[in-house]
Amino acid sequence: MVVLLKKNIDEKQLNRLINWLEDFNIEIHMSQGMNTTIMGLIGDTSVVDIDLLKALDIVEDVKRIQEPYKNANRKFHPANTVVNIGGVKVGGGDFALIAGPCSVESLDQMKQIAKDVKSGGANMLRGGAFKPRTSPYAFQGMREQGIEVMMEARAVSGLPIVSEVMDPSQLKFFEDVDLIQVGARNMQNFELLKELGKLRKPVLLKRGLANTLQEWLMSAEYIMAGGNEQVILCERGIRTFETATRNTLDISAVPMLKSLTHLPIIVDPSHGVGIAKMVPPLALAATAAGADGLIIEVHNDPPHAMSDGAQSLTPEAFAELVTAIRNILPFAYKSNE
Amino acid sequence: MVVLLKKNIDEKQLNRLINWLEDFNIEIHMSQGMNTTIMGLIGDTSVVDIDLLKALDIVEDVKRIQEPYKNANRKFHPANTVVNIGGVKVGGGDFALIAGPCSVESLDQMKQIAKDVKSGGANMLRGGAFKPRTSPYAFQGMREQGIEVMMEARAVSGLPIVSEVMDPSQLKFFEDVDLIQVGARNMQNFELLKELGKLRKPVLLKRGLANTLQEWLMSAEYIMAGGNEQVILCERGIRTFETATRNTLDISAVPMLKSLTHLPIIVDPSHGVGIAKMVPPLALAATAAGADGLIIEVHNDPPHAMSDGAQSLTPEAFAELVTAIRNILPFAYKSNE
Amino acid sequence: MVVLLKKNIDEKQLNRLINWLEDFNIEIHMSQGMNTTIMGLIGDTSVVDIDLLKALDIVEDVKRIQEPYKNANRKFHPANTVVNIGGVKVGGGDFALIAGPCSVESLDQMKQIAKDVKSGGANMLRGGAFKPRTSPYAFQGMREQGIEVMMEARAVSGLPIVSEVMDPSQLKFFEDVDLIQVGARNMQNFELLKELGKLRKPVLLKRGLANTLQEWLMSAEYIMAGGNEQVILCERGIRTFETATRNTLDISAVPMLKSLTHLPIIVDPSHGVGIAKMVPPLALAATAAGADGLIIEVHNDPPHAMSDGAQSLTPEAFAELVTAIRNILPFAYKSNE
Amino acid sequence: MVVLLKKNIDEKQLNRLINWLEDFNIEIHMSQGMNTTIMGLIGDTSVVDIDLLKALDIVEDVKRIQEPYKNANRKFHPANTVVNIGGVKVGGGDFALIAGPCSVESLDQMKQIAKDVKSGGANMLRGGAFKPRTSPYAFQGMREQGIEVMMEARAVSGLPIVSEVMDPSQLKFFEDVDLIQVGARNMQNFELLKELGKLRKPVLLKRGLANTLQEWLMSAEYIMAGGNEQVILCERGIRTFETATRNTLDISAVPMLKSLTHLPIIVDPSHGVGIAKMVPPLALAATAAGADGLIIEVHNDPPHAMSDGAQSLTPEAFAELVTAIRNILPFAYKSNE
Repeated sequence: MVVLLKKNIDEKQLNRLINWLEDFNIEIHMSQGMNTTIMGLIGDTSVVDIDLLKALDIVEDVKRIQEPYKNANRKFHPANTVVNIGGVKVGGGDFALIAGPCSVESLDQMKQIAKDVKSGGANMLRGGAFKPRTSPYAFQGMREQGIEVMMEARAVSGLPIVSEVMDPSQLKFFEDVDLIQVGARNMQNFELLKELGKLRKPVLLKRGLANTLQEWLMSAEYIMAGGNEQVILCERGIRTFETATRNTLDISAVPMLKSLTHLPIIVDPSHGVGIAKMVPPLALAATAAGADGLIIEVHNDPPHAMSDGAQSLTPEAFAELVTAIRNILPFAYKSNE
Repeated sequence: MVVLLKKNIDEKQLNRLINWLEDFNIEIHMSQGMNTTIMGLIGDTSVVDIDLLKALDIVEDVKRIQEPYKNANRKFHPANTVVNIGGVKVGGGDFALIAGPCSVESLDQMKQIAKDVKSGGANMLRGGAFKPRTSPYAFQGMREQGIEVMMEARAVSGLPIVSEVMDPSQLKFFEDVDLIQVGARNMQNFELLKELGKLRKPVLLKRGLANTLQEWLMSAEYIMAGGNEQVILCERGIRTFETATRNTLDISAVPMLKSLTHLPIIVDPSHGVGIAKMVPPLALAATAAGADGLIIEVHNDPPHAMSDGAQSLTPEAFAELVTAIRNILPFAYKSNE
Repeated sequence: MVVLLKKNIDEKQLNRLINWLEDFNIEIHMSQGMNTTIMGLIGDTSVVDIDLLKALDIVEDVKRIQEPYKNANRKFHPANTVVNIGGVKVGGGDFALIAGPCSVESLDQMKQIAKDVKSGGANMLRGGAFKPRTSPYAFQGMREQGIEVMMEARAVSGLPIVSEVMDPSQLKFFEDVDLIQVGARNMQNFELLKELGKLRKPVLLKRGLANTLQEWLMSAEYIMAGGNEQVILCERGIRTFETATRNTLDISAVPMLKSLTHLPIIVDPSHGVGIAKMVPPLALAATAAGADGLIIEVHNDPPHAMSDGAQSLTPEAFAELVTAIRNILPFAYKSNE
Repeated sequence: MVVLLKKNIDEKQLNRLINWLEDFNIEIHMSQGMNTTIMGLIGDTSVVDIDLLKALDIVEDVKRIQEPYKNANRKFHPANTVVNIGGVKVGGGDFALIAGPCSVESLDQMKQIAKDVKSGGANMLRGGAFKPRTSPYAFQGMREQGIEVMMEARAVSGLPIVSEVMDPSQLKFFEDVDLIQVGARNMQNFELLKELGKLRKPVLLKRGLANTLQEWLMSAEYIMAGGNEQVILCERGIRTFETATRNTLDISAVPMLKSLTHLPIIVDPSHGVGIAKMVPPLALAATAAGADGLIIEVHNDPPHAMSDGAQSLTPEAFAELVTAIRNILPFAYKSNE
């Protein structure tokens, strides 16, 4: 952390600041120039409140030069994290292929899709029971009943299941869910993140629509600070000025995250663009960039899906895509990190 | 709603679509051209799932031409809503002056600030007990104890109190809070909004950092659809590419919202920019634009505030600002709407 | 400027870097910690190429802590710049009221509008002769003939004239234009800015749609570096995710710029939102925030204007607005800077 | 185009509007509902000024349902355009591998790099002679002398050359340049686009930092409307809230553009992120997504490059990347469009 001081400051105030910082075991290096004085803070500055520093009378500006996250930081944990989800590994060379419908609609549907995506090559099954919808008048999901349907679909297919939680009060229904998803709009629902930190279960943390990579990693840090280190990050598109697609899938996040963190990173091209025909090219692109997996919407009857049908693949299109992904995988980028 | 059909479509599929729409009591007008066929849907189209329509094989594109919110819509409720908060009215000509610290720190502090802001001209007292922080290592607020402190500060000052809720499980502590605030990061915490809709208490709904006005009004609609019509909107800055300020305060939202909704709209210049010296000019600007009130951070010892000190005014600066606001108020813009 | 070095770096490379920096008369302060070494660069670092530094093998990161602009920087020029435009002063307490149509359409039109806006209270006349249009099929302006029309309108009204230049090759037509406007899409047309730097004429520099304040001031710096110090900045709305308005008028830029630069800053609410009925509240807001002037679209027949009719005021509405602005002006925010 | 009319409108005004539209050979279909009247405009609506329509008293809103570009539109030109650049084809299955330094620095440098990138697998040579720089104090390029250097480098290597033009007055130096580049900041320099439309030479049109795909295609339309149909689009990163990378490379633009236009689309991962080690994964991702080529910065001495060194590959790293690209190419996504 670097603190730029104002000109002609009061010596007493400066000493008070130095003493306060030294209480945190931070070493201070002063660089005095004609017009500027810079304080270099050396040590664990993650404990220093940057806003507080900026508010001081004698301080002109403060710049953080180290990341404020530790548990999620590759610098302190160089080896790739591998998360085990009901026997399926993700990260460090193991590739996740999660597929299924946006919403759980019925038991028959889920059983059928589970069989379809398994034979198409999926190794996990997704399905939304609690649905975040921007309109209070839209279908809000089958809720706890939907979770039960997912468990039956797991029983018939053998695929571990993934579903989204929206509120801590729903966690009681997720005890037997293999991978608990946090949606984009809840990425900074800090009370929910704290509760997930108390669990010892894999969490799939989606990126917020307008959040930076650092904010995202700070949300992973919330979960990890509670002791739950099984976090998978999921890029699912960010908000940009483009209106031709629902969101803009940020594939460049994959290599950047690989250098910042040791956590696995998967990509959701279905939500990322919201248009079925764009899912295959972007799935291949994410694979080539070095992603640790994909999550893809598949529906056995896309035009009648209850939500997000426009972005679902048919089981046939999914199986074809899996073949294409497997062709690319051996040539995908491998980071040295 | 307008549906653009693809060329050379199947007659049967078209008839199935028409029948499905007519079941919603929607009237359909077909406009057939050489290259394009347009269906105009006339009636209450808020019940039609736009994603579902877009997913149909025969549909090229769908455009909504009416707002998807009703309770919050000025078209259906032309008169301004006036919200009564413990005796203080906001909206329709009554101006809110909410002041106080970002975080509740101690009973002594709150009592002192409550007296200070009241004598400076505030008519409500704010103070954060549950604090959303991007870092798990930052101060998370005094929580339920903080709410009790707020109530004691109300007792000594007579000012109604405003505080933020982060999760439905905390609502039990807010029974005696006059105005319940929903923070920017929870604007689309739909489970929380539903719970607030069951109350019959005023809610202050802050705008999300990267949300459109329509999304914001849809979140208000969530609360109102539950029967709670006492919603006040609070503009608090949006995320832009600018890095010189924490956020960009969107004062243009005030006149736009005045035409879209009948709900009161207040402005938070303190969070909007995060720099104390920019609060007065932006408070005056928001007042001139026709806002129904302001929420301003005031701290009796800004450089030592536990959070957001950089953006707090001293009680003296606040009192001076109130005088300036009162000078502008008689000349502020008055909408005919 | 602060340079964060990598761990375990080569001593020779470090010495080479130090020598190179010292050649620029930059003093270097080293702060060595357990895990981090920070170099503080003290002196005129505007000459150091930050990208070059970042590219060096031994450098982990570089942070600029001082603004890269000098001529436009208030730190080095504390007094407000006042620009004289054909006898009308702008800045330092003098308020610009520029009005007129988006496009020059005919001589009769311009003469009529010039008289109308003058009697309504304007002290400068705007009119576009060269029109930047996103479509090649849209009306591109009357071009040089339009400039002649503007000069005739000046002759009958006595108002100095403002018009937009799009390319250096057009500058020959602007010799007798009082204030030369650079449009938002040309804010970083560096060849045009260099040519304007060679003139000794006032320039109105509009902000780019997605540019930061620093980038904008760097564009002003381009003009000023050529010796032309008569630059006025014009906020005209930035691109955000909002779709209800064409752009989002960033009134918060006014007080921020007042602290960063000594140049006058005016506001264009007409382009900022693109909706006539929102112009008055935002004009009042900009005035209250301390802007040095306004530029407002006025058309004597808005529904038939050849471009941007939706955002034009009638001459009557303009006159009414001027009265409201004059009521606010005495109570507008006055910065100490 | 769809026009939503206000309630209770004047019959005469409506008839005037209908007559005006029919003059453009547009057919009108009226859909009258209880609360809403919709006009469907059928025909070539690209000639209708949408702002003019919106400004009319009787109009509430206007929505365009067809793209305003024609020459660039795949609907009207289904076959892929193939551009021939000095014998090298791009588009329709032919892949461009453009490599070279950001800036031309000297003849020796360019000759060496030209040989290096050719032996590494490049089929075109890039090099900037005229450099757009945000600071007036930064190196502005070797200018016309740089173009001469590029021509000598072509002579020794046989590679067609690519260089950026910043202003119409520079076009005289580009007569013998094989592919003329328009930079991101000039994407909407309409006067420059018009001049390029008069040429019969290939143009590489980079996307603006905050522009939509439609705006980009409208800029291509400017060139094509002048009769020059040899346009290649180049995605080079957009501005987002992310600060860890200079820009965010939008790989999702590739498949979306493939459906909107018949023009070739190439990707510039070097400028897209500004970090050399992220170039290989993103180059592979763009290839997998179906791009028609790549433009990659290569420098024989990256740490001493005069601009953008941080993002340049060494010739060795480039050659290695080309091998990886060639492994992916056979499995890249192939659109049916």
